[in-house]
Formats: sequence, C-alpha cells, structure tokens
Amino acid sequence: MTSVLSTTVHALQWTGTHLAVLDQRLLPEQLIYNYYNDAIGVTNAITTMQVRGAPAIGIAAAYGVALSVIQHYQQNPMQWQQKVKEDIALLARSRPTAVNLFWALEQMTALLAQPLNDPIKAIITLAEKTHSDDIAANLTMGELGADLLTGAKGLMTHCNAGALATGGYGTALGVLRSICQRQAVSIYMGETRPWLQGARLTAWEFAQEGIPATLIADSAAAWLMKSSAIEWIVVGADRITARGDVANKIGTYSLAVLAKQHDVKVMVVAPTSTIDWSIENGADIAIEQRPTHELLPSYYQHEGSLIDAWNPVFDVTPAELITAIVTERGVVMNPTLLGLQGIKNEIL
Amino acid sequence: MTSVLSTTVHALQWTGTHLAVLDQRLLPEQLIYNYYNDAIGVTNAITTMQVRGAPAIGIAAAYGVALSVIQHYQQNPMQWQQKVKEDIALLARSRPTAVNLFWALEQMTALLAQPLNDPIKAIITLAEKTHSDDIAANLTMGELGADLLTGAKGLMTHCNAGALATGGYGTALGVLRSICQRQAVSIYMGETRPWLQGARLTAWEFAQEGIPATLIADSAAAWLMKSSAIEWIVVGADRITARGDVANKIGTYSLAVLAKQHDVKVMVVAPTSTIDWSIENGADIAIEQRPTHELLPSYYQHEGSLIDAWNPVFDVTPAELITAIVTERGVVMNPTLLGLQGIKNEIL
Repeated sequence: MTSVLSTTVHALQWTGTHLAVLDQRLLPEQLIYNYYNDAIGVTNAITTMQVRGAPAIGIAAAYGVALSVIQHYQQNPMQWQQKVKEDIALLARSRPTAVNLFWALEQMTALLAQPLNDPIKAIITLAEKTHSDDIAANLTMGELGADLLTGAKGLMTHCNAGALATGGYGTALGVLRSICQRQAVSIYMGETRPWLQGARLTAWEFAQEGIPATLIADSAAAWLMKSSAIEWIVVGADRITARGDVANKIGTYSLAVLAKQHDVKVMVVAPTSTIDWSIENGADIAIEQRPTHELLPSYYQHEGSLIDAWNPVFDVTPAELITAIVTERGVVMNPTLLGLQGIKNEIL
Repeated sequence: MTSVLSTTVHALQWTGTHLAVLDQRLLPEQLIYNYYNDAIGVTNAITTMQVRGAPAIGIAAAYGVALSVIQHYQQNPMQWQQKVKEDIALLARSRPTAVNLFWALEQMTALLAQPLNDPIKAIITLAEKTHSDDIAANLTMGELGADLLTGAKGLMTHCNAGALATGGYGTALGVLRSICQRQAVSIYMGETRPWLQGARLTAWEFAQEGIPATLIADSAAAWLMKSSAIEWIVVGADRITARGDVANKIGTYSLAVLAKQHDVKVMVVAPTSTIDWSIENGADIAIEQRPTHELLPSYYQHEGSLIDAWNPVFDVTPAELITAIVTERGVVMNPTLLGLQGIKNEIL
C-alpha cells in the first residue's frame, strides 16, 4: 500500500508554518495551492469550498487551530487561549453539516484544556496525527470495503469521497481503488451537480491513478441501474447518526431509493469521526443550504427575477436503505442503533 | 386562451419561403433565428439540437419536406419526387427517438403519393396544418391536464416540454400554464443535465410568462419529494408505446420511480402523434446515445483519456409508474394497452 501514499493528490499539505490548501474549485484545469497561516484564512478556505469533504474539513480545521495557537501564543503568551477559543468558534461556523469538523475541534479543545509545556509543539503534533490517522483509517476501510465488493462487475460513486475529500487515499474512492487493485470492475460516477465534484474531482483522481471510469449525468443513474450494469453504489458521508442515517451530498438519498428498487446495494464508507453519537434520527441533522447562485444561471440573477433556486447541499439517507457502513473499526451490515453500538464500544 | 397564442416564444416560424428556427442552444442569453430554405438545413438544425422536443421536431420536419418540394419542384418539375424522397430519408435520420418525426414524415409522404395539381401549395398547407393542429392540441391538453391538478400545492417538471418544444404553448408546460391561470401553485423544475433544458429553456419560458418557478439540481428531486413539497411530476414524451410505456428525456424514469416511493403522481402530456402504435414494449424503443463530449469536460477529451462518458438522451418509464397520460383526445388514467386503445379508436 505504500505506493498509494505517494500519490500526488493532496488536498492539504502542512509546511510547519502554513497550511497549503489545494483550491479544488479550479480542478481539473488548474492545480493551485493557497497558503494560510491563520485560522481566519483556513475558515475562509472551508467556507468557499476550496477544501471540501467531511474528513478533509476536519483535518483543515485541526491545522487551523494549530495555526491559531502558533499565532496567538507567540503574540500574546499570557492571553493566547481566549484568542484561540474565538478562532475555534469561527472555524465551527464554517460549514454546518460535516460532523468531522466538530469532532476535530473537540479533540483540539480537549488538548488545550490540559497543562502544556509547549502548546505549539503539542497542537501541531495532534493536528498531524489527525491527518495521518485519517489516511491510515482510509487504507483500512479500503480493504474492508473491497472485501464486500469481490466479484462485482460494476460500481458507481457519487460526489467526491476521494483523496481530495480526506487526508489522502479517500473513503469511498479508497474502497474503489482497493478493489481495482484486486480485480477488473467497471466504475461509474455521477457528475454531482451543481458543483460537479464527480466530473471535476473524482474523474481527475481516477485519471491520476490510472483507473478507467465513466461519467454519467446524475439523472441517468436509475437507467444505468435498470440496465443491470452495477451491483453497488459506494459513497462517503458527511454525518452518520447513532442508528445509521447518513447525511451526504445531495443526490445520495435519490440513489439509495433507486438502488433499493433495482436490487443494487449501497455502501457508505466513513471514519468513525463521521458518526454523531448525539443524534439518532437523521431528520435532526442540520442540512446546509448553499447560495442559489451556485445553481441558478446568471441570466436569472437579477432584481425582481421570477426564477429562484433551491440548493440543499446534502440529503439524508435512512439506515434502512443502506446495506453496509464501512468504518476503520469494522463493517456494520444493515445498520441499526445496536449494530453501530458495537463500533462505538470498540472506541471506548 | 387567445392571449396565450400571442406569446412571444416561437421555436419555429414559417415565412412562406423559409423556416426560421430559434437556436435553442443559445437561450436564454441570445435570441437568434436561423433561416433555412432546404431540407438539408432543417435536418442539420434538428441534429444539432437548435430545435428539439418531439412535437417541434415533427413540425420542423414537415416544413423541411415543404422546403424540399419547393426547391425540387421548381428546379426539376419532371423528377422532383425522387429528390424529395431522398430528403425525407435524410430528415428521418436526424434523430431516432421522437416518433412525431416519423409521424409527420408519413403524413407528408401520404399527401405526395396523391395526384396533386399544385404540390407546393398542398405541401405548405399540410405543414402549416401540422403546426396549427399541434398548438390546438396543446391548448386542449392544457385544460384536460389542469383539471387533474386542481388543488395541488406543488408541481415539478423536467426538461422542456413547452412552447419551445412544440408548435406553441407546450405539452407539460401547457398544463402548468393552464393550472397557473386557475390557481396559485409552486412550480419546480430540474436543471436537466447535460443540456440544461430545464435551467435554460423552461426557466426562460416561465419568466416570459410571468410565472414564478424554482430550479433544482436533478438529483435533489427525491429530497424535494421527501419534503412533501410536490404532488405531481408533469412531463412530456418523445415516444409512447401502445401500452403506455413512455420514452422521454433522461431522468424521467428516475423521477417516476422516486415518485412511486413518495406517493407523488406522474402525468405525461403528449399529442397522440407521439404514440407509436407499432410498439407495445418500451424496451423496443431505440434510445439515442448522444456524443460523449456533450457531458464530458473538455479536460478529459483527449487521445488515451481514461475518462469516458455514457450519454443516453432518453430513458423509458414503464406504464405502471404513470398515473395519467393526457392527450388532445382525452386522458388515459393508469395507462394500459386497453386504455390507450380507446384513444386510438377515437382516431380511426
């Protein structure tokens, strides 16, 4: 697996003094990193979707806290903690749905609550560990997920749950990479409107990895399933409730309902940091509404326009429509509160 | 209803010597008509999707035959019929799925098989009748369809089955126009990738008509249904089989499957010229595959690219998923072979 870690796709790179953020809005045409040395910059990178994907957002936030500590501890060794607290609150408001963000901020907050001889060193070490743990988790999930896909002829993914959405290797795309190392299989991906994460990011990652893949319009997925071309839908998650309801990119719920009607299975691949143990019912997850201009042609963006847009970024797939949730702690088949509890207990 | 006929939206305008075709690829930003005086030009306008929508394609083809007769009868009064036959064959190859195309060509062919004193006058008269009959049918369907929608709070349409896709007024959009004249109702439309007929054409038509409407990503339709915002999906058709299976824009099948799971009803609005009585099973309908470059970002369009696209333009919705087929001859609820036979018998 070591060759995989040397992949050139890095959404985030830590330089020791800055966080380099690959501006994913410009992919695949341009490969440009923006460098940030404070939490405000990192917050802005998350809000404007230069970096996206639940695990990557969490890691970026961890580095954002590290940058905050570096900045404020040096500037004001006596009162730096209040400034860092404000930065953490700022980072927490960057995107509402991905729970990894809040999980990462809690980890950093817990560390800072302890007496630390060298806060800068300690916080950088934890941010880097958050990053490397995520990659390790993805490699484990890749193998566990691939085990379930053995013999499959066709697979489809949605959005981008790849190296770009994580610390590296990817969650859903990690599983697809792992199965492609074992056997031949046809890979399909939805464009994923309105941001085209499938067409721009997932297609790019597959091309980088030398894996052939076929792009389809999101609305063609049902017709693809009807043609018996695929056995599994494999996606990531932005938040998973304690009973296994899954918030993920808009269109995931649609795919899961359609999959059920076509005897296609649904696999959700996500690290346990994506699980929000405080929520059972997916209806209680806050769904982010993005600005309408991301969807609406500019022609209709004028005062008094009769044409509006509805732009929810995520939807919630109930656990009943999910065949398997793959985590770094193991696989939960036909997820339920009890089934997921097994994963939780392993953490405690 | 006469005010409706004065709408400024005309996909096709007959000048007496030319067919003016609104180049729908440039909408909504630019309103440009291209003028054709031969069948080759009209064929090209259809193939390149300057004009699209099953009824509009049929009407354009009828005018294409008229232009062929004008050209060849004048140039070669003795052997013009062979040339016209070749032009009809050319027009028939322009798009494979819309049956209105073949229906219109058959009407024109049947006329030309008769002894005609003035072939030019006769063929122009028939082409113009094809056009005006279509508008009349749409007005009738608008009323019949609106009757079924009485009291609805929310409706969704897909692609563009409006004035732009027909002789005028529209099929599915005609029904939505008619219900909006009677009562308040929320209108949603899917973007309709990859050509964005919903975002570009349907949104534009609603804005022109003064009807507020909300655009959504195609993949958000399931989430919209889950929120109980809509009671009906209202769409057009490119071909309907004798038992009521419906070929329509890719994504229609997806919407119909999702509708069934959310207790949302599905209405198909199409003139009887859309019904292909020679086919029972929708699986026997030829589904057009469009060039992959219409879907694939240019970044991946190079020699040796690992990223391909699958770009079916239509899908087939089985009759079981359709609540009502609305035609100018009447409404068929829960369509079956027997149910549609009633409409056919009325024609004979």
